[in-house]
Amino acid sequence: MFTIRHLIKSARDVIPVVIAALFLTASAYAQSDPLPSWNDTGPKQAIVSFVERVSKQGSTDFVLEPERIAVFDNDGTLWVEHPMYTQLAFALDRVKTLAPQHPEWKSVQPFKAVLDGDMKTLAASGEKGLLELIMVTHAGMTTEDFQKVVTDWLSTARDPRFKRPYTELVYQPMVELLSYLRANGFKTYIVSGGGVEFMRPWTEKVYGVPPEQVIGSSIKTEFKMQDDMPTLRRLPEVNFIDDKAGKPVGINQEIGRRPIAAFGNSDGDLEMLQWTTMAGAPARLGMLVHHTDAEREYAYDRKTDFGRLDKALDAAAITGWTVVDMKNDWKQIFKN
Amino acid sequence: MFTIRHLIKSARDVIPVVIAALFLTASAYAQSDPLPSWNDTGPKQAIVSFVERVSKQGSTDFVLEPERIAVFDNDGTLWVEHPMYTQLAFALDRVKTLAPQHPEWKSVQPFKAVLDGDMKTLAASGEKGLLELIMVTHAGMTTEDFQKVVTDWLSTARDPRFKRPYTELVYQPMVELLSYLRANGFKTYIVSGGGVEFMRPWTEKVYGVPPEQVIGSSIKTEFKMQDDMPTLRRLPEVNFIDDKAGKPVGINQEIGRRPIAAFGNSDGDLEMLQWTTMAGAPARLGMLVHHTDAEREYAYDRKTDFGRLDKALDAAAITGWTVVDMKNDWKQIFKN
Repeated sequence: MFTIRHLIKSARDVIPVVIAALFLTASAYAQSDPLPSWNDTGPKQAIVSFVERVSKQGSTDFVLEPERIAVFDNDGTLWVEHPMYTQLAFALDRVKTLAPQHPEWKSVQPFKAVLDGDMKTLAASGEKGLLELIMVTHAGMTTEDFQKVVTDWLSTARDPRFKRPYTELVYQPMVELLSYLRANGFKTYIVSGGGVEFMRPWTEKVYGVPPEQVIGSSIKTEFKMQDDMPTLRRLPEVNFIDDKAGKPVGINQEIGRRPIAAFGNSDGDLEMLQWTTMAGAPARLGMLVHHTDAEREYAYDRKTDFGRLDKALDAAAITGWTVVDMKNDWKQIFKN
Repeated sequence: MFTIRHLIKSARDVIPVVIAALFLTASAYAQSDPLPSWNDTGPKQAIVSFVERVSKQGSTDFVLEPERIAVFDNDGTLWVEHPMYTQLAFALDRVKTLAPQHPEWKSVQPFKAVLDGDMKTLAASGEKGLLELIMVTHAGMTTEDFQKVVTDWLSTARDPRFKRPYTELVYQPMVELLSYLRANGFKTYIVSGGGVEFMRPWTEKVYGVPPEQVIGSSIKTEFKMQDDMPTLRRLPEVNFIDDKAGKPVGINQEIGRRPIAAFGNSDGDLEMLQWTTMAGAPARLGMLVHHTDAEREYAYDRKTDFGRLDKALDAAAITGWTVVDMKNDWKQIFKN
């Protein structure tokens, strides 16, 4: 016979279970939103669906953990690249800092243009002029000294528009994405056209990506024993350009596995996305960040000097890569 | 008052503790011999003491886990390099396999020498001849095809003296050392003069070192889309020689942190050991494997074509690097 006493007893048994269930639901809900800065639109759904398919044991698209490699471009994909690449802003500041030791720069291009703040003449100096700037500001010291120069600069330099340190101008949705992937067994790599030694001093702190998972362009270095002290000196000579068709080459050289997810924002990332997604086989994710938000950040694609997105945008439509519309798909751009 | 009953009760309380303590001691004993193939001589003691100092929190030499990077040479340090580097044996076999498609090789050096088994003429062709052999046998295919060629060869090729697959001629004490370091929070890397794509297909299975932790010499590769299929083609052009002063360069390029332990066996490892151990700062371990066991393996040092140990042996005496005497310090060379 079922009595009030039974009911009370049942309730006593059930209540903790209900509370626990409520608690679990709440916690599951918290867990189910690892990407709070993303609106609940297509790209977020594509990411979550991809991650669940490759990480759930028994799924037909299941990928073993060591093979869960995700590669990210840096400039324009993880942090701001307008009005110019941050590394270029660094080089220009560095020319000004070093100018007193180089009185001849006052009359020699492209240095004169930098010192005069004459961006038009600087641009006219082309790739050759730019390379000269990079060599003068990035070579001629040990790797340790360069690391210190970069760290010191980043601690004081401020973006002209947002008045914040450059390392705060990283995209919060992408930082969440990096964490979300790692929480699901992914190894996250940066594969950038930028200088590898310009990135390594801060990527671990800012993105959670350790130095050994940063691939980038580089100049040559030379090992020498100097007064019983081993040193690596940075030489004014290009070693590797990790851009365009160089990205799959760099990935193969340093990782030696094909990634299963790639994130970029420009034509410089086209080949990396092709290499990652077009080999047939299992589930792959290719994604492009499209800068569509002039108000909160910048709006540009086919016509810009920094981060042109043209061929890759056309390719996305054909290959089925996901295009993130910053304005509509991101609730928030930067961390408050 | 203390009675028999108290005594029994105390015993009842104490016995499980004693049993647990005995169990823990036994298990601690098992744990205290992570290097069973090493004799209890200097090198083993140096390794264990170093690992304890850097991994015990509160130790003055404590090193945070992400900075516990250990680098290992491969040929002669982790596996046999006599009577010739395994990769050279591979190249010679490959010439024989490809010969039917190259009738001209019958009369052109250094190919004729290889086909005739004339090692003297082959050696006389010098570095130029050797490079030619490497290019012909290692380039001209995709990275995936090369991986298959290597894997197929290793599955059938046998060492002429030991009559075993080359991947079984790895040093058991070093395999234990790799595991021991990883169990103590180290990230283990291979840094070899050998070809990176010759090693990657098997290092994870044999050493527990994944492809992204293998650094080696390389030829250039080129990315291309072929019929909508992304490919990396291996070109007959040297990209990087990861030997001698190239080793610290490769380490800095791909890891971007300075290792705290380095293991080698030849002059090719000298600069890697200098870079690792001579920067002052915290505890570092430098170690050289000295081939002293003609009976169980080989005995050679200052006078050999493969793995010469001369300058580095002199440097060891000055810098305090540990020298492993294979004959006396290793209980066992290979896995039975």
